[in-house]
Amino acid sequence: MAGFDVSNPDWKTAVEASFARQGFMSLIGAVLEEAPAGSCRIRLPFRPDLCQQHGFFHGGLIGTLADNAGGFAAASLVAAGVEVLTVEYKLNIIAPGEGDALVAVGTVIKNGRSLIITRVDVFSERAGEQTLCAIAQQTIMPLAAVRVAR
Amino acid sequence: MAGFDVSNPDWKTAVEASFARQGFMSLIGAVLEEAPAGSCRIRLPFRPDLCQQHGFFHGGLIGTLADNAGGFAAASLVAAGVEVLTVEYKLNIIAPGEGDALVAVGTVIKNGRSLIITRVDVFSERAGEQTLCAIAQQTIMPLAAVRVAR
Amino acid sequence: MAGFDVSNPDWKTAVEASFARQGFMSLIGAVLEEAPAGSCRIRLPFRPDLCQQHGFFHGGLIGTLADNAGGFAAASLVAAGVEVLTVEYKLNIIAPGEGDALVAVGTVIKNGRSLIITRVDVFSERAGEQTLCAIAQQTIMPLAAVRVAR
Amino acid sequence: MAGFDVSNPDWKTAVEASFARQGFMSLIGAVLEEAPAGSCRIRLPFRPDLCQQHGFFHGGLIGTLADNAGGFAAASLVAAGVEVLTVEYKLNIIAPGEGDALVAVGTVIKNGRSLIITRVDVFSERAGEQTLCAIAQQTIMPLAAVRVAR
Repeated sequence: MAGFDVSNPDWKTAVEASFARQGFMSLIGAVLEEAPAGSCRIRLPFRPDLCQQHGFFHGGLIGTLADNAGGFAAASLVAAGVEVLTVEYKLNIIAPGEGDALVAVGTVIKNGRSLIITRVDVFSERAGEQTLCAIAQQTIMPLAAVRVAR
Repeated sequence: MAGFDVSNPDWKTAVEASFARQGFMSLIGAVLEEAPAGSCRIRLPFRPDLCQQHGFFHGGLIGTLADNAGGFAAASLVAAGVEVLTVEYKLNIIAPGEGDALVAVGTVIKNGRSLIITRVDVFSERAGEQTLCAIAQQTIMPLAAVRVAR
Repeated sequence: MAGFDVSNPDWKTAVEASFARQGFMSLIGAVLEEAPAGSCRIRLPFRPDLCQQHGFFHGGLIGTLADNAGGFAAASLVAAGVEVLTVEYKLNIIAPGEGDALVAVGTVIKNGRSLIITRVDVFSERAGEQTLCAIAQQTIMPLAAVRVAR
Repeated sequence: MAGFDVSNPDWKTAVEASFARQGFMSLIGAVLEEAPAGSCRIRLPFRPDLCQQHGFFHGGLIGTLADNAGGFAAASLVAAGVEVLTVEYKLNIIAPGEGDALVAVGTVIKNGRSLIITRVDVFSERAGEQTLCAIAQQTIMPLAAVRVAR
């Protein structure tokens, strides 16, 4: 896992800029944390309006964080100007999303030319202690030219 | 697919009440639409703060809608007082989420005692015309007593 | 689903030849059945040496049939000389694989240029009656030039 | 991952006996290798009749090995007399299955009472050197009384 070839020397700036342009990340209050190339860590502090009917983080947000942590882990390895699209992901929720925050950690497993494969762990954090909440496996496609909506 | 055995005669009220208690559905503006037992349809009107960096619906919301449409399709078939938990789901995104709204349609494929299996189609809608945007497959666990957060 | 564009007028011959070259299909006795373009049906008659420890078809064979039925459904739509690779698949087993045969039916959901997405139903058949045994969702990559082993 | 609670002191014998009763493992020549509780390693030596059309290990066998390595990893942790069923798995194939053998290594990620979640790595091996060939994520259900076929 260590020693990924970085294609874009400015990958950190590129990943941060891309994350910052995601309106949905602002809406939910997700924060991109420092992480080495080939990985990504995203934190989502608890808010009542992020919950499902029993007061836990909504499963859709566990999936959102997993998808994004894997996607930006992949994005850190592509050449300048190349974007990444999620082809698919699969998420197992293994404990309720509860506590002070969710933390998703994505790692590139295979940095292929046409497809990038990642694994993601999502933890729930309470008073600094982490519990594994979900695991995911994801397929990402790097794309040189991405269409923009509208 | 037709002719599901309904365990709870008040399933519509139960599903609507559960959906209404999900703070996250309010936050994003998702709407539960009329659907027969064993299925569920959820609509998410477009808003800029639901987007990723290119102005499309964020992939995490496509997953959220798929997860919820499958989950409430399952919820419509369980006995009164029984809750449903997402064990896992797998989502293929096959076209960008764009247009006026996302519409997710979940259908129960197998209504098992210990596990319920669903399939979900997510469409993007523009001027009333639908394009298939994503497909999902999901495992749901019915649970008689669900812990509440905190 | 109906009305797939066929790129190779000889798709039937190509699919049959490819299936015939899979030594593993001979080993297990799987049979390619007639199916329209964009879909594929494969039958696997029961044999004791195809079982797991309780006398049911081994789960690995349920997955094998699903993978192949999806893959050949995709293969029926690609241009002459193009091969298909399985990127990934996800399989839910919803009933034991038992009876006289397993029958897998794959259908292309999205015939994309870079990726083809399929859904598969696997049935177990006893005395001509079919029971849904598993469902799958799969990502296939068409490839113009495929490396050959050794 | 270390320090799994073992419920059955004779788990090794139980796992080996179960593996030995799988006719399909004999058919393909798969071998159960020594592994600690909570994990499982299965080796499949190359044979031409295990191949797809280009001379690589058939993808269905990559899935079979992944499914079984995860399943027996789970089986090593359950109480005496309890069996395990595969609920679902998802497999990404990231390199062709080639060389002298496939080796699948399954690890339990969550040993839950009602569901056990595993991750699996499948390697292809040539002259003792391993290349990552596939990764999987799996849901297993422990069952006290399992029906037997016929």
